[in-house]
Order: sequence, then structure tokens, then C-alpha cells
Amino acid sequence: MIYAALDIGGTKTIAALTNENGSILTQKKFTSFVASSQTHLDICVNALRELMQERGLEAKEIHGLGVSLPGIVDSDRGVLLYAPYAKWKNVPVAEYLREKLGIANIRCDNDVNACAIGELKFGLGKKYSDFVWMTVSTGVGGASVSDGTLIRGADGFAGELGHLKVEYDHPAQCPCGQEGCLEAHGSGTALNRLTAKMAQQDAEFAAALAQAGSKADGAGCAKLAQAGNPKALAIFDEIGTYLGRGMAYCVNVLNPQAVVVGGGVSASLELLRPAITAALKVNAFRKMQDIDVVCTPLGYEAALIGAAALAAE
Amino acid sequence: MIYAALDIGGTKTIAALTNENGSILTQKKFTSFVASSQTHLDICVNALRELMQERGLEAKEIHGLGVSLPGIVDSDRGVLLYAPYAKWKNVPVAEYLREKLGIANIRCDNDVNACAIGELKFGLGKKYSDFVWMTVSTGVGGASVSDGTLIRGADGFAGELGHLKVEYDHPAQCPCGQEGCLEAHGSGTALNRLTAKMAQQDAEFAAALAQAGSKADGAGCAKLAQAGNPKALAIFDEIGTYLGRGMAYCVNVLNPQAVVVGGGVSASLELLRPAITAALKVNAFRKMQDIDVVCTPLGYEAALIGAAALAAE
Repeated sequence: MIYAALDIGGTKTIAALTNENGSILTQKKFTSFVASSQTHLDICVNALRELMQERGLEAKEIHGLGVSLPGIVDSDRGVLLYAPYAKWKNVPVAEYLREKLGIANIRCDNDVNACAIGELKFGLGKKYSDFVWMTVSTGVGGASVSDGTLIRGADGFAGELGHLKVEYDHPAQCPCGQEGCLEAHGSGTALNRLTAKMAQQDAEFAAALAQAGSKADGAGCAKLAQAGNPKALAIFDEIGTYLGRGMAYCVNVLNPQAVVVGGGVSASLELLRPAITAALKVNAFRKMQDIDVVCTPLGYEAALIGAAALAAE
Repeated sequence: MIYAALDIGGTKTIAALTNENGSILTQKKFTSFVASSQTHLDICVNALRELMQERGLEAKEIHGLGVSLPGIVDSDRGVLLYAPYAKWKNVPVAEYLREKLGIANIRCDNDVNACAIGELKFGLGKKYSDFVWMTVSTGVGGASVSDGTLIRGADGFAGELGHLKVEYDHPAQCPCGQEGCLEAHGSGTALNRLTAKMAQQDAEFAAALAQAGSKADGAGCAKLAQAGNPKALAIFDEIGTYLGRGMAYCVNVLNPQAVVVGGGVSASLELLRPAITAALKVNAFRKMQDIDVVCTPLGYEAALIGAAALAAE
């Protein structure tokens, strides 16, 4: 069985065809046209048509299309209510794509829910019935699976793990308007900020970055940390401590078997692990604190595979 | 239909017969015999037999017995794994009661889960599909209902809301061995501690307590706060702020419609409300923070009605 998947992100979009196991058969990657949601959806339609033509497939042979979207989604109606980066509002994604493509079964969800559903269906869901999905990237997003079911919450907004408060006494400003959020203290943005600050305050650290041919950003800090630079490791410890605090709340509320980490910063999970483990030990309730903290095996295509999982649900 | 219910607490036990709507038909209340779990279960058996005899009922006419237990429960097997107050361990409650009473359908759960299931079936579950149950008493316990289902977690330990960290910089010691837990900062115990400390440090406050004929404890503080004493109100503000922090984590993870509060301190919910509301405003994600924070309508019998709900599930 063939499924279609669209992972529409704030900056890039991937269109793909997959099989029923979530394996990607063919894909096209392109820049998201943020100026107009309708134009961008037309670009997506063309991309999917091209992929179908290449494979000699017609719409009726596609068992479903899943769409992962960057924002707040009414998944029942398939409407993108609001996409913060693109400023799109109330886009009837499912209806528009259904009309243009002639595929009946179209399912939409936000990107983090899609990741969690992809993990559940095609990834570590084979191992874990209860897990938390945490995207650690520019921001921090989350979704929780309990007894094999995604927790959506009363309004579909559950899993705002990036806005769990992890710092009350010296809180950093968060883009959400509040302060002390995990997204402000334990994200890729925080990693960049701490690295830049350290480079400004510490000439030795700045020199080490320069010597490594790195910028004063998260990637540079990771490079130094991997080489054992103590100041770079201290920055990862700070980020990891805050991530561990956020994870500990989830542990106490949900008693999961694992936290599955995705997003760009997950590539540095081993640098974060000592502090995450230590934070879980002091902050999560003792009898539940021994959880697995693992990188998603779905890699950078988690949201795309998640979109395929939506269609195959 | 008639159900039997047992609410076995650390200090008192209630045996009751209920109808299928969770209404209590008759009940007996007695002290928990903590020295021996077996002797105490025999006392419970006798109490239930007496209630049945009074009503002229035989075991086969009882559709089920639900048991609410004070500790960690393996609800699948009906075993009380550990009761911290009584130090009971691995008590095969369901098996023992089944044998002695001849009632086939026996369901056991811990007290807070029982409260949440009671609320779901016979209380505010008619209004809310997604809610958090929070017992605020000597300690703080919790249970979460998502889309009409109790979240149990991988090991059945979900809902340890009393051990959510709410204070990192000036943490108080918690009986769990960690520090900064909601139970250490937002419980009846914390209310007693803050009141005693204030009475010790502040002669005017101590005099006000004495004048009101109150002790330097939570009840005394509530009496002064109700009369508008600013220092007593400040104590309730501190407790409420920490409760609001704990609730905010639940909001961000679960997007509930309500937090339903039970336990002795819930009688002072209106004194706590201003600080709870303020804490939710700064700590819960904006689009989900407007939740109901309400006292359980099940009152002090929440766990007993919960036990009846277990049997009727």
C-alpha cells in the first residue's frame, strides 16, 4: 500500500510517498513559500503529483495523505489554525488538498504530534507503550503517549513541554511572552545564547572556538565539548539540567518508560546525558526515575514519517 | 444494583454499601488496625457482613466490591504492594477478601486513583473528560484523567504530583527523601509548618492566634486568614503559589479542563485561589491556562465513592 506524506515546516517542506511500514519510497524537498499558504499548498500539490507520475500512480492508488504542520492544528477538521513562523491563519489544509489531489483520506496534525505518532507506529512504539516525545531544536516541543495513545488534551494543546517552567529565580525571557520556560533554558536557542555569552566573557573560550574554526554558537560549543573543553561541557551541563527538570515533571505526571528526543540538538544527546541523568535523579520520583532517554531512530525525517503514520492510522 | 466499598486509610477505614449511582446506602467507620493487615482485613470483612445482614443481603447479591488502599497498589492483581503509614507489604487484598466474603468481582486501587475514578464516574466526570485530581492533605497526591481514561503510566505510578519540584533555590525537605517537592511546599504539613514558624517569629501573629483561641497550625491560620489577617493570607498565598506551579506543569503536559481538589486543605481553596490563579497565569501556557480549579463535590467521602466506582467500572 502506498501513502503520501507532507512535512510542511516553517522553512522547508518535504513531500514523499511511503509504503505501509513508513519507509520512504521517494521524496522531494523544497523551501516553504511562507508569503502565501495557498501558493505553498499548490507547490505541495505539484510536488506530490510529480512523485506520483514518476511512479505511475494515480490518486485512487494512494491510500491516504498525512500532513505534518508547523503550528496549532485542528486535527479533526484538518485546519491549520495558526503557524507562528509563517503567520498563516485558518488554512483549510485537508479540504484544499482533497479537492486538488482527489485523495479522500487526508489527515493533518502538528509536527510534534506527528513525530510522536510516527514513533508510536513506525519507531520505538514497538518497544514503549508509554513515552514522551521531545523535540529539542530552535524551540522545545513535546507530545506524550500513554498506553499506546497520544494524549491530546481538552483542546488538542497537550504537550507544551517547551513552556514548562524550569527556572524561577533567574528566568530567561521566552518567545511565548513568559519567562523561565524550558524553551528559554534548554533549547538550541539557549545553547547558542550561552555559547555566545561565554565567548564574549571568556577570551580563552573564544580563542578555542576560533582555533577549532567554529563560530560562537551551539555547533561550535558541541565541537569543543566533544574535545573535552570544560567550559563547553559546562554549557551542555546547564542545558541538560534544564532538560532533565522538564523530563522529571513528565515522569512524575505520566510514569513513562522513555523520553524520545528529536530535533537538531538531539545529535548532542550524549553531551547532555550526564546532566539529564543527574537532574532526573534529584527531580523525578524515585521509583519512576530510571527511564530511557534516547534519540529517535526516525532521525531528521521524524515529522515526515509521522505524516505517513497519520495517513496510515 | 448494590455494590460494596471499602476505603482503607492509614488511620481510619470506612465500609459501605452503595447503589449503582455511587450513593452511599449505609456505612460503618472504624479505626484502621495498622499492627496487622490480616487482622484489619478481618475487621473489614466483619463490618461488611454486618452491613449486608442489616439490609438482608447475601454475597451473591453484591455486584462488586471496590477497595481504596493507602499506598502502592498492583490494581491488576489486587495486591497492596506497600502502605507507607502502616508499613504493610505485599498484602493480597482482593484474594483474601474474595475468599472470606464470597464476592467474585473485587477491584483494588490506591486512594488517589480511586478518587479520580469516583470523580469520573459519579462526580465532575459528567462535566470534564480531561481533569487532574489533586489531594491536598498531610501530603499531596494526584491522578490524571485524559479523554475519560485514568492515566496509569508504565508501572501504574503516574500522578505523583506531590513530588513535582516547585522550588529549586530554597527547597524544603520532603518525606520522600528529595527536596523542593510540592508536598514539602504546598501541603497541609507545609501550612502547619509555615504557621508555626510565623507564630514563633512574629509576636503579633502569635497573639492573634491566641486571641482567636487557635493553635499555631493550619486550622488556626485559616481562621485568621478568613478574618483578613494579612500574615495569615500571605501564608496561604505561599502555599497557593506552589500549588499553582504544580498545577501549571499538569496544564502544559495534559491540557485539562479542570483541576479537582480534594483532601482536608481543599476546604481552604478560596483562601488559596488568588495565588493559584496568579501562578497559573505566569506559569501555564497562555492558551491553556484558563482552567477551572474546583473542590470535589464528593467531599470527604471521595475515596469511598471512588471505591464504589472501582467495583462498578
